[in-house]
Amino acid sequence: MRDVYLVGAGQSDYGAFPSESYRSLFRTAFEAAVSSVPNGLEAEDIDEAFVGNLGVGGRQIGLSGPAVTEHVGLDGVPTTRVENACAASGFAVRQAVQAVKSGIADVALAGGFEVMSDMSSDATKYWLGVSGETEWERLSGTTFSGVYAQMASVHMEQYGTTRDHLSQVAVKNHSNGAKNPHAQLGFECSLEDARSAPVVADPLNLYHCCPTSDGAACALIVSEDVVDRYTDDPIRVAGVGAGSDSVGLFQRDSYSSVPASQRAAESAYEMADVTPDDLDFAEVHDCFAIAELLAYEDLGFCEKGEAGQLIQSGATELGGDLPVNTSGGLKSKGHPIGATGAGQVVEAYKQLSGDAGERQVDAPTRGLTHNVGGSGGAAVIHIFEKESEVNA
Amino acid sequence: MRDVYLVGAGQSDYGAFPSESYRSLFRTAFEAAVSSVPNGLEAEDIDEAFVGNLGVGGRQIGLSGPAVTEHVGLDGVPTTRVENACAASGFAVRQAVQAVKSGIADVALAGGFEVMSDMSSDATKYWLGVSGETEWERLSGTTFSGVYAQMASVHMEQYGTTRDHLSQVAVKNHSNGAKNPHAQLGFECSLEDARSAPVVADPLNLYHCCPTSDGAACALIVSEDVVDRYTDDPIRVAGVGAGSDSVGLFQRDSYSSVPASQRAAESAYEMADVTPDDLDFAEVHDCFAIAELLAYEDLGFCEKGEAGQLIQSGATELGGDLPVNTSGGLKSKGHPIGATGAGQVVEAYKQLSGDAGERQVDAPTRGLTHNVGGSGGAAVIHIFEKESEVNA
Repeated sequence: MRDVYLVGAGQSDYGAFPSESYRSLFRTAFEAAVSSVPNGLEAEDIDEAFVGNLGVGGRQIGLSGPAVTEHVGLDGVPTTRVENACAASGFAVRQAVQAVKSGIADVALAGGFEVMSDMSSDATKYWLGVSGETEWERLSGTTFSGVYAQMASVHMEQYGTTRDHLSQVAVKNHSNGAKNPHAQLGFECSLEDARSAPVVADPLNLYHCCPTSDGAACALIVSEDVVDRYTDDPIRVAGVGAGSDSVGLFQRDSYSSVPASQRAAESAYEMADVTPDDLDFAEVHDCFAIAELLAYEDLGFCEKGEAGQLIQSGATELGGDLPVNTSGGLKSKGHPIGATGAGQVVEAYKQLSGDAGERQVDAPTRGLTHNVGGSGGAAVIHIFEKESEVNA
Repeated sequence: MRDVYLVGAGQSDYGAFPSESYRSLFRTAFEAAVSSVPNGLEAEDIDEAFVGNLGVGGRQIGLSGPAVTEHVGLDGVPTTRVENACAASGFAVRQAVQAVKSGIADVALAGGFEVMSDMSSDATKYWLGVSGETEWERLSGTTFSGVYAQMASVHMEQYGTTRDHLSQVAVKNHSNGAKNPHAQLGFECSLEDARSAPVVADPLNLYHCCPTSDGAACALIVSEDVVDRYTDDPIRVAGVGAGSDSVGLFQRDSYSSVPASQRAAESAYEMADVTPDDLDFAEVHDCFAIAELLAYEDLGFCEKGEAGQLIQSGATELGGDLPVNTSGGLKSKGHPIGATGAGQVVEAYKQLSGDAGERQVDAPTRGLTHNVGGSGGAAVIHIFEKESEVNA
């Protein structure tokens, strides 16, 4: 297998943008990614493109990949839409890695987008619902907040996790998001704010749930044969892993873990030949606060059942041993579904390039991104490392 | 790049099956693919899966990949949904090829499915329409038959192609489909039948248009490192190519060719190091009769403008120099959108394995499959060859 590298990544702001289209958001992200490449990259260099998009709202159900790559001038470039619900563009990044490793492409674009802010609440419920399990979840009235609320309840019952642990996730991620100019909810929240918010699906309240968002993100993946053209300080895609599972939560053995994340982590750590101790930061899929706590355990940041203690210890804050969701996460930065996975890679790129501004982690060598589809029907993990630091 | 092989492929019947679900159809195709592997293959051998699906009807918009792979017992296997409209599973096969060439997987499943027969005509129009261009095509009332009718009109005007040439495509493909037990419209039609059918979108009539279909198809792609476990007579994926283009026909320079197909063909021929003369059969994307004629030219089976003469010559009939759509094609075999590309690979596998029954081509060495999304927003081509014949 030849080595592959991340040489650029960029995103649009996340938020509600009534005057933007999915194409204009994608173009903003594409241009940001291209202009982030240290030694420059031309659109003509791109051999292949993968675009993640759930297609909520029914704007463009088919061929949304070519619809956006054409718009950014990638005429004729093989473009494939990839979709695994909220993990759509995490899997698009994985496809770009496979395309480049396969030798079929030397330079691949992986991106994603979603426009959600112009939908009514009923439409949102419908379009997100048809990514969940139909018979026993959606048609019986369960929403994604309901599904994650069940996971939270079980984790609280089994391991003594508290509502305050959930709220601490919100406090941390908002604190980070307040330092990210692209964040949708870029303001701080206090523990008291997070405690006293209205209930969405008990035990989850408003501060335990991510917003719906418009946005786009892109990343550029290249082969070892061409990486020197684009950067003098390469960031290697050291590991990639993925897993799948039943779409419905009720079909799984456990409500308090996400086996697809565990499988993805195992593969990614093995391929990168690292352990969680070797990570300097991580972006994990915190669509709901409980999801971040489950990720701590599924990805091996702590032992099973100890995620509450980990968030409470401060270890995952900026300045802690393993800062998590320095971007603000889905909670504060926002969650434009199809863009989220690629957007996590944007944060990894910024951190490893030393361009994360006020939220910069101190000289990181290695970071991880973790993107989940649905309530865990699919998960994908990437590990990025700065070669100059690894070899130092 | 390591070599990859096609070691099995199978499909469900194509048709209208009110008592089947998308999961049951996929299982039928999966089981047919697995049981077609000469030396046997276990579900546990499968490292990775790609599932093509447009999601018409709104059954399962997100995570439809894991929803079907879980149903066939591929617990936890990384599964990615791939979508490029009618080329969804052609691109799924391409992703499987990339995954195996990349070294990340040794055995990959590529499949697809669609259920369309339970939709009203308005629903069909909506769900297919949102795979077309929105502003200048769908919202101004143009359907896919209308788009292809424009291509046919221009081709007739520029090159003297006739309505009878279109009808001859139908006669040939129905003659082949009548020999395919999986075909939805498995009956012969005469030139008179095809001439006198009711108009759909002038100059296209009912016999110039494929049906809407339910169905599923699967293929199994493996690496050179493991191919010997599965077969003693390997079929190599010699070439793969893809291209994209504007989603809207009106944005393109030409109405009488499909540039995405030309790009895909060029890449695939180059990778396989063959020319169209080296092909013994081809499955091309004949969603409308004109599409088969355009494919003749775009794929180099004849010169530009000469597709009418080629169909008239009989060269593309069974027993001709280059039999095209021996399966019956989309026209007679059927077109369950997300299944179509993988279904073409099923025909290639049967032909190269000598299992095509009454429609068997005489001892073929090499065949091509060609799958188009929309009116040419994406296209993907594979070339398969029997190593024992190539090396003979």
